[in-house]
Amino acid sequence: MDASPLFTDLYQLTMLGGYWQRGLHTQEAVFDLYFRRNPFGGGYAVWAGLEVALDHLLSLRFDDAALAYLKGLQLFPADFLEALAGWRFSGTIEAFPEGSVVFAHEPLLTVTAPLWEAQLIETALLNIVNFQTLIASKAARCVWAAQQSPHGGQVIEFGTRRAQGPNGALSAARAAFVGGAVGTSNVEAGQRYGLPVVGTHAHAWVESFGSELEAFRAYAELYPDQTTLLLDTVDTLKSGLPNAITVAGELRARGHELRGVRLDSGDLAWLSAQVRAELDRAGFPDVKITASNDLSEEVIESIIREGGRIDTYGVGTQLATGGGAGGGALGGVYKLVELNGIGRIKLTGDPTKTSLPGTKRVWRATDAQGHAVLDVLTAQDEVPSSGLRVSDPSNPLRSSRLPGGLDWHDPRQRVVERGERSTPAASLPSLQERAQAELARLPAGTRRLLNPHLYRVGVSDTLQGRRETLTEQLRASLPVR
Amino acid sequence: MDASPLFTDLYQLTMLGGYWQRGLHTQEAVFDLYFRRNPFGGGYAVWAGLEVALDHLLSLRFDDAALAYLKGLQLFPADFLEALAGWRFSGTIEAFPEGSVVFAHEPLLTVTAPLWEAQLIETALLNIVNFQTLIASKAARCVWAAQQSPHGGQVIEFGTRRAQGPNGALSAARAAFVGGAVGTSNVEAGQRYGLPVVGTHAHAWVESFGSELEAFRAYAELYPDQTTLLLDTVDTLKSGLPNAITVAGELRARGHELRGVRLDSGDLAWLSAQVRAELDRAGFPDVKITASNDLSEEVIESIIREGGRIDTYGVGTQLATGGGAGGGALGGVYKLVELNGIGRIKLTGDPTKTSLPGTKRVWRATDAQGHAVLDVLTAQDEVPSSGLRVSDPSNPLRSSRLPGGLDWHDPRQRVVERGERSTPAASLPSLQERAQAELARLPAGTRRLLNPHLYRVGVSDTLQGRRETLTEQLRASLPVR
Repeated sequence: MDASPLFTDLYQLTMLGGYWQRGLHTQEAVFDLYFRRNPFGGGYAVWAGLEVALDHLLSLRFDDAALAYLKGLQLFPADFLEALAGWRFSGTIEAFPEGSVVFAHEPLLTVTAPLWEAQLIETALLNIVNFQTLIASKAARCVWAAQQSPHGGQVIEFGTRRAQGPNGALSAARAAFVGGAVGTSNVEAGQRYGLPVVGTHAHAWVESFGSELEAFRAYAELYPDQTTLLLDTVDTLKSGLPNAITVAGELRARGHELRGVRLDSGDLAWLSAQVRAELDRAGFPDVKITASNDLSEEVIESIIREGGRIDTYGVGTQLATGGGAGGGALGGVYKLVELNGIGRIKLTGDPTKTSLPGTKRVWRATDAQGHAVLDVLTAQDEVPSSGLRVSDPSNPLRSSRLPGGLDWHDPRQRVVERGERSTPAASLPSLQERAQAELARLPAGTRRLLNPHLYRVGVSDTLQGRRETLTEQLRASLPVR
Repeated sequence: MDASPLFTDLYQLTMLGGYWQRGLHTQEAVFDLYFRRNPFGGGYAVWAGLEVALDHLLSLRFDDAALAYLKGLQLFPADFLEALAGWRFSGTIEAFPEGSVVFAHEPLLTVTAPLWEAQLIETALLNIVNFQTLIASKAARCVWAAQQSPHGGQVIEFGTRRAQGPNGALSAARAAFVGGAVGTSNVEAGQRYGLPVVGTHAHAWVESFGSELEAFRAYAELYPDQTTLLLDTVDTLKSGLPNAITVAGELRARGHELRGVRLDSGDLAWLSAQVRAELDRAGFPDVKITASNDLSEEVIESIIREGGRIDTYGVGTQLATGGGAGGGALGGVYKLVELNGIGRIKLTGDPTKTSLPGTKRVWRATDAQGHAVLDVLTAQDEVPSSGLRVSDPSNPLRSSRLPGGLDWHDPRQRVVERGERSTPAASLPSLQERAQAELARLPAGTRRLLNPHLYRVGVSDTLQGRRETLTEQLRASLPVR
């Protein structure tokens, strides 16, 4: 999709008009992007979409068509529209690199820019990173579940036909790869992002031949080294499997090996164990078993628990749409935390939802083995050290002091400086590697699907104090009624 | 998005290669598109996305870049790739016009085309109509809930920041409009589809001023006839509302009227009743109340039940992603039902999931008042009439005979003939009007959110018999093991 500055909520543009007419648009603003709950009730998220979002916002320009459309709305004065023609993003962005493992309440991305630049990009930025982080996190959950099998297991993304629109499918394929999926069925995603594309054949292939055996033979003849046969068009065990074994033998006689079979209905745990046993008995221990049909991380976990022998899980709808409990959308927000050097805050009825004012830093502690231990948010000029008191971001009454003996580093990078990329664009495989490496260094239990270990994120007293002071000031200004 | 024939699953292309190399690609195939369950546990769906899908598939061509990418996959012979350069859709499509109210098991769209044309388009077709039908149906549910208030109520789409990717947001805005939403906050959707765009201002506007009253004044001065003020940045009743009433008075003194206020947190039922009463008391009965904050059709229904006084519901995440029970994706499928004039079938473990073979027609019966009464699927040459026996598509044992005194019509149209549009492209307002008119003619209870009246869809004995005969033939061909 070509980036359009009109891909935003109308109110961003009416506010921009207001800032501009009042001469407030160049005030230096700082916005933090964060979410308040890890997706899917899990213990972490895989941060994704950053590279796409940066490409998007750095290319934003109001072209003639956009300006003509805005003029037609009869909301905006002509001189403001002229000023918009010169709008471009000239600010600075600090962010976790894409593929990082991140947690609720952490500023994943901080924009420092003139107010009208920082404000306009909110909607698109949230749209892109909310969705891709949701899907990358879902993929990481599915991959973790698949890896619980003593025989191993991998995940491919199969969900295009039920994804949320064409770009939803493409973005999902990309994000699923960042989160650990090894490929996608979507060919355009392969072309666009360089992802491995994978596939088998559909029931229609078998139906169009009438004879399942002839259909299998025809496919194997055409793709002798890349054939995965779908077993359930007629009956998985009575028809599909014996026919597949026949074709596997014929392929071998010609010097090729059947790559795999696919199960798409029935009791996948039981069927896959039967199919594995019969393939092994027939002399085809290397023929892989792929399964599909409404899979999710929970279904994968239960298949493995019950002795299923699936090598590759083709996860469709649930992966491409981030479905399941607490799914469908990640509730990332983007909040003004400072303006002209002064902290800003939005009160809410729920004090734990009140934003943390001011610029800040994120720190991650690792132990001697390189495992992540906890994260801490501090004021810009603070450094975490043994004894510093930190509190729970969603419950300020729970506090503790930082232990010693930890290595601290700031995982965020300055990815944009004065409107230019200041880190090189990263390849998708490198993002997947980062995610896998960071996931492997999490404390035990953090990746559990249900009721995981909760990774600790602490807020320094300085930051908490700032929030309390601003809250008091604002409350004191209210009339007593 | 530019239409790419690579926006498909890899297996479609490997099957195409197979059909082509075997000379099977020009066999005349018939595919039906349908879903098996109404979305959200509801009693109907609003069919949407058709116009987008038709534009997409009629423009598909394999350009040099696409062919070069496929060549690089080293899966396809050169002569097949040359043949793909000439691929285009030349078939015929019968479909419900977009905006129609439709039901589970009905063939919403039937493609008759050479096998390799009908097969390639499956993925994109399903992607587009599955998502847009999901969202249009969600919008219709929200609109119905809003209309239950004795004071009326309307719905706007506010979900861009949490939609599934940029195109997901744009498609959602379009589909929500078809389903009855009156506008969207997404400006690009306004530009692209001519939708009304709407908005208020954000908390950041107030925070950037420091004083809420000054922020309200500034906004009202800039947009004197289009101002909706957000009340909850500090405190809805203690600060936001009195400041809004002050500004409404100042606007009136200058010959303008405040358009509205927006509530974005707290108990929306109780707050909206308070705000309505105070606005009325202050002499502003025409100031509208908009509400947002995690709304859904169920939340709207409960707000109204508890006396809430909201005029406009800004529905975000739940509308743009089709969230909620049974949500996130519509499980539409696309099944081969005939090849070279012979019926085809896919067996499954669940007999009610077995496809209905052969070409068929859909009939809708209306009573003397013009209300829809039931739908019937028949063989191509059958006409429904009093006494014809029909059975439940998901339970063949439940059957009945058609009553007399009904008007029957075939609601589907030939929308594409030999690769060309044969009906004019329809405007979005006309699609919304069709949906509203058809929704208004449904039997009582069909639109209820929970446990709705189930609109009857019957399958003629001829069609059922075809399925049974083919099933028997296929089962008889299985080896006894």
